[in-house]
Amino acid sequence: MRRPVSTTLTRIFPILSWSKTYSRQDAAQDGLAAVIVTIMLIPQSLAYAMLAGMPPEAGLYASILPIIAYAIFGSSRVLAVGPVAVVSLMTAAALGSVAESGTADYATAALTLAALSGAMLFGMGLLRMGFIANFLSHPVIAGFITASAVLIAMGQIGPLIGVKMTGASLPELVESFWAGKAAFNWQTLVIGALGLAFLSWVRRRMKPALRSLGVGPVLADVLTKAGPVVAVAASTLAVWGFGLDVAVVGAVPAALPPFTSPSFDLALIRELAMPAFLISIVGFVESVSVAQTLAARKRQRIRPDQELIGLGAANLAAGFSGGFPVTGGFARSVVNADAGAATPAAGIYTALGLAVAALALTPLLYFLPKATLAATIIVAVLGLVDLSILKKTWGYSRADFAAVAGTILVTLALGVEAGISTGVILSIALHLWRTSRPHVAEVGLVAGTQHFRNILRYEVITDPSVLSLRIDESLYFANTRYLEDLILERTAEDQNLRHVILMCSAVNEIDMTALETLEALMMHLKDRGIALHLSEVKGPVMDRLQRSSFLDHLTGRVFLSQHEAFVSLTGQA
Amino acid sequence: MRRPVSTTLTRIFPILSWSKTYSRQDAAQDGLAAVIVTIMLIPQSLAYAMLAGMPPEAGLYASILPIIAYAIFGSSRVLAVGPVAVVSLMTAAALGSVAESGTADYATAALTLAALSGAMLFGMGLLRMGFIANFLSHPVIAGFITASAVLIAMGQIGPLIGVKMTGASLPELVESFWAGKAAFNWQTLVIGALGLAFLSWVRRRMKPALRSLGVGPVLADVLTKAGPVVAVAASTLAVWGFGLDVAVVGAVPAALPPFTSPSFDLALIRELAMPAFLISIVGFVESVSVAQTLAARKRQRIRPDQELIGLGAANLAAGFSGGFPVTGGFARSVVNADAGAATPAAGIYTALGLAVAALALTPLLYFLPKATLAATIIVAVLGLVDLSILKKTWGYSRADFAAVAGTILVTLALGVEAGISTGVILSIALHLWRTSRPHVAEVGLVAGTQHFRNILRYEVITDPSVLSLRIDESLYFANTRYLEDLILERTAEDQNLRHVILMCSAVNEIDMTALETLEALMMHLKDRGIALHLSEVKGPVMDRLQRSSFLDHLTGRVFLSQHEAFVSLTGQA
Repeated sequence: MRRPVSTTLTRIFPILSWSKTYSRQDAAQDGLAAVIVTIMLIPQSLAYAMLAGMPPEAGLYASILPIIAYAIFGSSRVLAVGPVAVVSLMTAAALGSVAESGTADYATAALTLAALSGAMLFGMGLLRMGFIANFLSHPVIAGFITASAVLIAMGQIGPLIGVKMTGASLPELVESFWAGKAAFNWQTLVIGALGLAFLSWVRRRMKPALRSLGVGPVLADVLTKAGPVVAVAASTLAVWGFGLDVAVVGAVPAALPPFTSPSFDLALIRELAMPAFLISIVGFVESVSVAQTLAARKRQRIRPDQELIGLGAANLAAGFSGGFPVTGGFARSVVNADAGAATPAAGIYTALGLAVAALALTPLLYFLPKATLAATIIVAVLGLVDLSILKKTWGYSRADFAAVAGTILVTLALGVEAGISTGVILSIALHLWRTSRPHVAEVGLVAGTQHFRNILRYEVITDPSVLSLRIDESLYFANTRYLEDLILERTAEDQNLRHVILMCSAVNEIDMTALETLEALMMHLKDRGIALHLSEVKGPVMDRLQRSSFLDHLTGRVFLSQHEAFVSLTGQA
Repeated sequence: MRRPVSTTLTRIFPILSWSKTYSRQDAAQDGLAAVIVTIMLIPQSLAYAMLAGMPPEAGLYASILPIIAYAIFGSSRVLAVGPVAVVSLMTAAALGSVAESGTADYATAALTLAALSGAMLFGMGLLRMGFIANFLSHPVIAGFITASAVLIAMGQIGPLIGVKMTGASLPELVESFWAGKAAFNWQTLVIGALGLAFLSWVRRRMKPALRSLGVGPVLADVLTKAGPVVAVAASTLAVWGFGLDVAVVGAVPAALPPFTSPSFDLALIRELAMPAFLISIVGFVESVSVAQTLAARKRQRIRPDQELIGLGAANLAAGFSGGFPVTGGFARSVVNADAGAATPAAGIYTALGLAVAALALTPLLYFLPKATLAATIIVAVLGLVDLSILKKTWGYSRADFAAVAGTILVTLALGVEAGISTGVILSIALHLWRTSRPHVAEVGLVAGTQHFRNILRYEVITDPSVLSLRIDESLYFANTRYLEDLILERTAEDQNLRHVILMCSAVNEIDMTALETLEALMMHLKDRGIALHLSEVKGPVMDRLQRSSFLDHLTGRVFLSQHEAFVSLTGQA
């Protein structure tokens, strides 16, 4: 089937699908949403730039062109991309091993990391590899985000009280805190603590408070979103007015995003490739789940492969315009959607708003205390800490629990890259481990039906000459030897046995290794005068068996149903 | 259940199980087998030592104490351990990157590699980790051994014609051949070619020829096994007598195995850890499959976990007595079994025979041409090349084919370590890929039965208000999003639909990620007025669902059988 060209273009550039019918009403909604999101993003962008070890303006730049690139290519109507907490932490961890924060090398490495990540995401999108995100299980992601949030919050305690802290893991953070604790500064602590208290109040109580004062819902919302801006303005004024001796942001150039080029140094690219891949996957998973949640509210759907392209374009844009790795953020996207954004044009307006900020407002940031930014970060990430996943998985599945606990512990102890890698490897390894020792049930006929169930769980009819085994797993290389041993053991002592039926209702595949093992098993059983039968073999599995020589020398038969097999071999009805 | 101490001891030291009843008859059989195996092993040990880049006497040492250690701990009665072709190649590849062949560092690294591998095998045995071998699928092993045999044979073309060749992959071998081709030597070529021709004849034709001359079967067998010794003796005499100018083995000390110590240098151990692990796994898999094949002939069984301990002890012995990594060899074990070995005492006698050879015969080896050893190796390994696995897997399963082809190509192009790693990773990745896109069949009732099958393959009864989907895979993180999309798509357009039944006969597990996805799916369907039911949920899966809150808000019901579900929801019988 060939699609018309216009449909194909619309698939590649989702912007074409909404721009043609863009209405005045849409523009009004998008404009309001853009104002709210812009107000929210100014302090957040500065803060996440600090978290990533970048100069503050880089946070603004990372939100301008990337937003526009995503608006052109992304499939979500309300996703807002830019620097987010976990990806910024991963960026700092990746760059920390190649350059010193604050140097030109560090900034170049950040551009390279963003461009690499962008190229990977874009490439995966073209290859339709969105499925790769499925190998991160929900519990592993939940555990990783919780542990990352703890690391981020711990790391911001330093700037909050005037102590310099560096490190990519809990032990490193504690050590650097201990080493630098002499720099502790009362003035910084006061600003930090006030900021933290105010921002927590804004987050939890300000909106109800305003509403109870009779403020309308939209205004209350805008004012609440402006809370961090108030904290920024008030603390900046305090430092300037009282001449406080605290760490401040300092000189920030007033400029539009510059054109920058990532490095093409192969050694650097090789060193950053793995972190870029991990950042891509984590960013993609986080972004897609936000986009899906928001799309589901409006009965829209997003296309994961197109999201890869959209995020790839955004990161490439970040790499060429003075930014660092970005992805779709939860908080900003929810705010954007709640504020009524109708189309991705809201993102474009936000980008314009931030460009104005980068041009006009940056000189005002000189006296902005870093402690205020640290408070902003801490309040934002503490909302991500959710240990309930440990309890939930403990009750449901020990394997899932082990994967979560392993991810959390390794992330805290060794850092984000080791943590997320451990999560993926652990969940795959545990899955393989479980499927390598499958459940095998001896089944019998449930009286009055044609249904066969486990003899240990149900009152069923059996026959001494027939052993019916339901194998609850595909037969493949990792479990075939285990199953052979198990079946040989179960059949070893039984003198009356003449038939073994393998009920294959749960066998979704028989690979080459398993086929060879089945042949060996059949010969073993034949030596003892026992025939091997198969029942309920599924279509795709049967197709494949017919292409091999296995069925030619099968000592028993293949039955359509277990009931037919049982009746035919025992004469019982 | 507590086992009596004597049984436990017998499990740990299988030697105790046969030594008590050891008879004169056993001794006679074992003695004859030992003579034949010793004759066979002398040239083979020298040759594999050369292949591993070790001095010739190391080949003998690697067959003396390791055989005795295995006789004490191993569970196979006829397995013969010592240097084997593939493991020797892997040894050369591993050591080539840490030291120059012929140096003291190289020998120390070999001891360290053997001891490390021994410690790993022994440890895995204590932890009962024999299952780890299951992650090497049969086709991957077959492909790996074939590719290794090709590499080995190619690498011996150099010594066969007097050209020095080094390299761990096909491109490296070709390059080194090209660089050294000037050293080509006619005298070496003549010896090599004669050796090759004679040994091929011995292997294929000598025994029938001797039998047709009226020689008895046992004598014919011994003479055939002595063929390589004849080649060694004749070529040595030729070099000595005619004063030929060819590369020879040179001075070999006449001594019993020395006590040697592996290195405890952490940097070296870290560098050798991965190769040692791969050598352990490949050696274990090769050895266990030989042992199982031979045990099956006599209705004996071997215990994989005990084999780990036996092979671990053998490699530790090699590491402390001047050897290099060893494992159970196919050729030597078959010869041992065929020659009538009744107990592992045959191995102990073989070790004594080799000790005598190491003491008394080594001075005679001075003029032994290396070309003869190369011919011995080539004839031995060409029997391992078997490309039929490519054809077999192509016909049966493309995924298995891809794993084999990938293993062969990477082994040839990049060497043994990359090859075997690729094989393992590829087979696991392909398995995950397949299970991440499971087969889902819409099923209907086969008339006159209670059995449900695919509506596309069978004439079945269905109902417009009920969609029955049989999911042919466990629900876990890697496939849950795919399934959600698929079910939402199948149910999207259907206005009559009121019930979706997920038939879970092939669902062996529902992990946390899948559970959350099922809940989301249920809510989606509920929005459209469709209830979600489950049928044929297995015991272990049901147990787990009952521990979660999923069943509390399930919009439909859980039915024991698909038939019950269909009847109850449609009223059709």
